[in-house]
Amino acid sequence: MRPERVLIVGGDGYCGWATALHLSNAGYEVTILDNQIRRAWDREHGLASLVPIAPLRRRVEAWKRMTGRTIAVEPVDVTEYEPLCRAMRAAEPGAVVHFGQQRSAPFSMIDREHAVRTHLNNTVGNLNLVWALHEYAPDAHLVKLGTMGEYGTPNIDVEEGFLTVEHNGRSDRLPFPKQPGSFYHLTKVSDSDQIFFACRTWGLRATDLHQGIVYGSHTDETAGCATLANRFDYDHIFGTVLNRFCVQAALGHPLTVYGLGGQTRSFIDIRDTVRCVRIALEHPAAQGEYRVFNQFTETFSVVELAERVRAIADGLGLPGEIAHLANPRKEREEHYYNCVNTNLRALGLEPTLLSDETIAASIRLACEHRERIDQRLIPPHVQWQSQPAVAAATQAAAS
Amino acid sequence: MRPERVLIVGGDGYCGWATALHLSNAGYEVTILDNQIRRAWDREHGLASLVPIAPLRRRVEAWKRMTGRTIAVEPVDVTEYEPLCRAMRAAEPGAVVHFGQQRSAPFSMIDREHAVRTHLNNTVGNLNLVWALHEYAPDAHLVKLGTMGEYGTPNIDVEEGFLTVEHNGRSDRLPFPKQPGSFYHLTKVSDSDQIFFACRTWGLRATDLHQGIVYGSHTDETAGCATLANRFDYDHIFGTVLNRFCVQAALGHPLTVYGLGGQTRSFIDIRDTVRCVRIALEHPAAQGEYRVFNQFTETFSVVELAERVRAIADGLGLPGEIAHLANPRKEREEHYYNCVNTNLRALGLEPTLLSDETIAASIRLACEHRERIDQRLIPPHVQWQSQPAVAAATQAAAS
Repeated sequence: MRPERVLIVGGDGYCGWATALHLSNAGYEVTILDNQIRRAWDREHGLASLVPIAPLRRRVEAWKRMTGRTIAVEPVDVTEYEPLCRAMRAAEPGAVVHFGQQRSAPFSMIDREHAVRTHLNNTVGNLNLVWALHEYAPDAHLVKLGTMGEYGTPNIDVEEGFLTVEHNGRSDRLPFPKQPGSFYHLTKVSDSDQIFFACRTWGLRATDLHQGIVYGSHTDETAGCATLANRFDYDHIFGTVLNRFCVQAALGHPLTVYGLGGQTRSFIDIRDTVRCVRIALEHPAAQGEYRVFNQFTETFSVVELAERVRAIADGLGLPGEIAHLANPRKEREEHYYNCVNTNLRALGLEPTLLSDETIAASIRLACEHRERIDQRLIPPHVQWQSQPAVAAATQAAAS
Repeated sequence: MRPERVLIVGGDGYCGWATALHLSNAGYEVTILDNQIRRAWDREHGLASLVPIAPLRRRVEAWKRMTGRTIAVEPVDVTEYEPLCRAMRAAEPGAVVHFGQQRSAPFSMIDREHAVRTHLNNTVGNLNLVWALHEYAPDAHLVKLGTMGEYGTPNIDVEEGFLTVEHNGRSDRLPFPKQPGSFYHLTKVSDSDQIFFACRTWGLRATDLHQGIVYGSHTDETAGCATLANRFDYDHIFGTVLNRFCVQAALGHPLTVYGLGGQTRSFIDIRDTVRCVRIALEHPAAQGEYRVFNQFTETFSVVELAERVRAIADGLGLPGEIAHLANPRKEREEHYYNCVNTNLRALGLEPTLLSDETIAASIRLACEHRERIDQRLIPPHVQWQSQPAVAAATQAAAS
């Protein structure tokens, strides 16, 4: 029996690259679809991964050399339909894993142009993908990367995608109400709605992974050699909070918490991300089924994370403090947060919880690449509540 | 005091034109923003309004001649930001009424290209509009045309935009869960999410009118002369169900019900549409408020409507029958449907219920323009569950 073919859209990115190697190692026949636009966005904004990353071609060559396994690469932009369809027809995939999106909330909030660009890239790409599946691979299983951020922070427990609602003596199982907090998060909600519609209407099969914030630099496969190394973002646009704290700790700078720091979010280790995707593939959705897995293992408040990093940095001889900055985002800074994550556990996920060793490894990684850190990229420059141009002009005229 | 300036985006369309005249008549200073793309879509698909409609320039000239009132016209495509901003800065509107969208579900389901085109037109247009308001008219009241179709047909009562959910002993007021039934309806849900986000984040003020299916040909203002006449769509793409039944009755053809006909929907007379918009403008949302008004007056099942039209046509000497066709859509054909519509009533709307005379007037209008009816445009050609290309190719190869 031929090994299952998997297309990985966005396979050059942080989650995508780690997943591509993990699935290749597990015996899947992997094709990466990626136009490497994320690398272009880094250049556009003067950003760079803390850990140097090799060009995609060199990455897959190194993988071939080390393991004998081939990963095919198709330089496809999913917002262009014809190349996507050609790749779909050529690969005849049993599954498509879709990571190919602009994934930064601050990027989407820079200005109108970045909001629209995020929207076009993510939503037209997603529309094209569901149409290409419908037209050329209607039995393939779509595994789509969503985000826990789609739910926002409601004052009730967050279920996995659906909620049984009782109202005026009647009841229905309905999509869980969502309150996305940026133009980026809005695109993810829109994707979820589109995919659910495609499953109901065309009988597509799909798993929507509502993932928490991912941390960690290595998986078993990316740790193999420097050419296979994964990216590590610490900047104010693509950097995630734990990475930023580790970089600040390595520099001996205060760990900057935005606002009160009571913002609680769900988190997952990159080593669990790749396992979750594999679990979803090995237990595919039924034809016509749209299911949501909340893909996280723990929740932390921002200030809790800062305390953890501060204590571990202290133990490594890097004493520091925590500083509170004005919050550039518009979000609740103290709120209820309790999210269900039983679907993946029920299918066998054994969580890798955030250990002191994982935090220490990230701090050591930041120390090791200290000369590559650009301190100007750390403070938040993108404001959710940017002042209207008309108000700025009025103030300028009055002064 | 200067009369309030209102921008009407999509002011050349069915709801937009009627609203422009109604507001102009009520003393508002009206500017229409419309690139007339709807007329281009008609030409593209070989469609035409049953009632001939004058070019937009001639429409506003006739209005000026008859009433002395000026309606300005800006040929702006809202998917282009700079012209939109220029118009926004020039008009300094107190309110913006946004009808400027592709509004047909079948159009959005023709193929991928039409789904993406609908998406780009509606969602990029909506994004541009909220950004332009944020940047150049942050105090203006946005009145946006949504649709009751955003909700789908849940098995619980449909509230106005929000629902208080009790879950595991906790409670929150959350966005009402939505289950849109076409790529067009998906864009409307996405718009609602974006506008709610803009209100929360930037303090915009917005009213989202979740409107039912509109019927009727005349308002007080459009009835003034033939040059002011509004469009009347009966075709399988833009035609609505009541119009189609009236045209079929005029031809002596069977009234075609899709599937069982138990599909129940909410309806509103175009004369109430224009009043609802005015009510929303006269009672604006507060700064930062996002509110939803369910804008309909009655609900009917499709088969009920067909019975009404059949009986009235019979009385006009046009006997006919009802025929059931295979349903081209994917939707529930028997379901619970009970929707709240108290917000507009509380602000003073006196509903114009569907009268026999209104139906008879539409049948007479169809008889009057009988020579303009293109019978080929009536049967449904767009299938929600189009066969995948790969399946069609396989079947062709096997036969």
